Amino acid sequence: MISNKMKKLVQNNSIIREMFEEGKKLKDIYGENNVYDFSLGNPSAPPPQKVKESIVKIMEKEDPISLHGYMSNSGFKDVREKIANSINKKFSTNFNFSNIIMTVGAASGLNIVLKSILNPEDEVITIAPYFSEYNNYIQNYDGIVVTVKANEQDFMPNLKEFEQNITSKTKAVLINTPNNPTGVIYSKEILEKISDIMERKQKEYNHEIYLISDEPYRELVYNNIEVPYVTKYYKNTFIVYSYSKSLSLAGERIGYVVIPKEMEDSQEVIEAVTIANRIIGSVNAPSLMQKVIAECIEEKIDLESYKKNRDLLYEIVINCGFKCVKPQGAFYLFVKTPIDDDKEFCKIAKKYNLLFVPASSFSYPGYVRIAYCVSYDMIERSRSAFIALSKEFINN
Amino acid sequence: MISNKMKKLVQNNSIIREMFEEGKKLKDIYGENNVYDFSLGNPSAPPPQKVKESIVKIMEKEDPISLHGYMSNSGFKDVREKIANSINKKFSTNFNFSNIIMTVGAASGLNIVLKSILNPEDEVITIAPYFSEYNNYIQNYDGIVVTVKANEQDFMPNLKEFEQNITSKTKAVLINTPNNPTGVIYSKEILEKISDIMERKQKEYNHEIYLISDEPYRELVYNNIEVPYVTKYYKNTFIVYSYSKSLSLAGERIGYVVIPKEMEDSQEVIEAVTIANRIIGSVNAPSLMQKVIAECIEEKIDLESYKKNRDLLYEIVINCGFKCVKPQGAFYLFVKTPIDDDKEFCKIAKKYNLLFVPASSFSYPGYVRIAYCVSYDMIERSRSAFIALSKEFINN
Repeated sequence: MISNKMKKLVQNNSIIREMFEEGKKLKDIYGENNVYDFSLGNPSAPPPQKVKESIVKIMEKEDPISLHGYMSNSGFKDVREKIANSINKKFSTNFNFSNIIMTVGAASGLNIVLKSILNPEDEVITIAPYFSEYNNYIQNYDGIVVTVKANEQDFMPNLKEFEQNITSKTKAVLINTPNNPTGVIYSKEILEKISDIMERKQKEYNHEIYLISDEPYRELVYNNIEVPYVTKYYKNTFIVYSYSKSLSLAGERIGYVVIPKEMEDSQEVIEAVTIANRIIGSVNAPSLMQKVIAECIEEKIDLESYKKNRDLLYEIVINCGFKCVKPQGAFYLFVKTPIDDDKEFCKIAKKYNLLFVPASSFSYPGYVRIAYCVSYDMIERSRSAFIALSKEFINN
Repeated sequence: MISNKMKKLVQNNSIIREMFEEGKKLKDIYGENNVYDFSLGNPSAPPPQKVKESIVKIMEKEDPISLHGYMSNSGFKDVREKIANSINKKFSTNFNFSNIIMTVGAASGLNIVLKSILNPEDEVITIAPYFSEYNNYIQNYDGIVVTVKANEQDFMPNLKEFEQNITSKTKAVLINTPNNPTGVIYSKEILEKISDIMERKQKEYNHEIYLISDEPYRELVYNNIEVPYVTKYYKNTFIVYSYSKSLSLAGERIGYVVIPKEMEDSQEVIEAVTIANRIIGSVNAPSLMQKVIAECIEEKIDLESYKKNRDLLYEIVINCGFKCVKPQGAFYLFVKTPIDDDKEFCKIAKKYNLLFVPASSFSYPGYVRIAYCVSYDMIERSRSAFIALSKEFINN
């Protein structure tokens, strides 16, 4: 008999699995090349060549006992120092190794931050649309999800609604920029406004309200648009970073949390997050990959391939008459569905072998997420399917 | 302001850190070579040469996008199949890939199993002495730790006390064989008895009582003593395995959970554990290391070095007049302290630059854990310190 909490999760999961199974069925019937699976956020750009070179070099050079053994729960000091220096150089921050805790990806980073700060019934504000796993992460620590909708015209948080939803029970605000699923980036101005509101509310309620910035897409931006560094706008900020997308290492589970010394009681918070890293069972970020990161810290994947994908898919979608805010980052298009029911729209799309994720899963119904971390060829091949799909709605 | 749960953990942690800092101070004063640090369970035998060869080979051979990308949350199917076959061959079991879930080490494996089965206030029985992190893992899911003491003569659970402590709230029993910190191995006979009691209690209370077998030390046994495979004795068993010690890959965070199909509602349990793996933030076990495991599945570290260490340290300890059950596995001696207060004994040992862990941390006061995963030379050098320490108590 599994736990009551897990019972519900297993039930919900079956629905997602059903979708996945149906996709597989389609591929079996029509052939891999004739099904257009835009549902997954798995990187399609290869990791930089230097990742491979570094792994081979490290294996040749390092003592295997210390390379593969336990280190401090927060990670190798030299790796954390390199990361701190790299951030400092780019954003004129003032971190050292002690502000960086290496994690098993951003998912684990978010979990250990939430575990460290949440008491049961504490509220965490999310800005919809948002990655649905946030619900699980927050509920893991008996927190309550309070959702504020982003504006439809630009997917920026509705600040009035944001302010109204901060209560004495609000412990944290969770943002994600560049955003999954919309691809929008929060500007300096919006961060300043968020910060102003939160500062005011901290004073009003006389306790910390943390800003948690989930940044797996930080490096995936097009046309050199700046992604401001959030700790510069608000002191009580956690940055949660991952190399899953920036170096295409999603399966390797490597990332870090930044806790600035300007945070209230930062020493205690750093200690809590480090202990949480240990006791949720991560113990430490995978050791070889930590060393690889230190070697590849200034490496970049081929962003141009994602940009080409974005431009092609955006052109197809717009030409078909669908509505979409052109994304500045990440690798998703967030497209308004011509009917209100996004799940129904996904069902219809499946008739044309097009697989999308309904944005109900992102707490923002009436949209779909179309991931373009796929091959350029697949996008090109899918054009006629998009056209056929769009005709269903013009004819209606 | 960190959460109330974490406040307590941070306070306790400061004590351990103090010990660690003091050890470092000793090394600074007396020199690395004149401090005998027996406090850590970090493997001292190098990983098999094939680990390195496999990493290099995999990097040459595999497509980097799929190698480093996401896979199913339960891990690569081919890796899980190989592990299942390897277990089947050794123990005449009948697993396939679906019974194996790859995890971020055993610590993460224990967490996802406990998350999957525990409702708040459910009781989990541990057999003292036991790894103190179990307390944290169980409390992560609001479970209650119920401790049964092992007998002092052989460190086997006191079965009468064990049976008495199983109540209608007991959800699981957590065992660890070969055992940290005692090094003892549970025989077939003891497993049969544990199983009989649990079967009876399951019927009495009309719900499952799970047996969780934490097995990071399974391969670390001396003189070819058999470590029985627990699923053969009790159907509702989870095996939690790790390559941390068996391949000296502790920092890489790689292991697995076995859920036999004979377990009640095994499909639902497998699904719950897989979802738990995802939502606690592990997502999946590190991908490259999964592939390495598949290549190194029959590899072994140099057990002889641990055995030589054990024999030397045991000889020293016994010759000094201390009492200790000779361990059959793992890499620890569990030594009775000549005074009741094990913390005080550790303080006195520190005067001779000997660092031990007081067994109060293993819920078994009056003993110390002395880890022999260190260099043979260090053990030899420490002899005079042990002799000097022992004289303190003969003179008293």
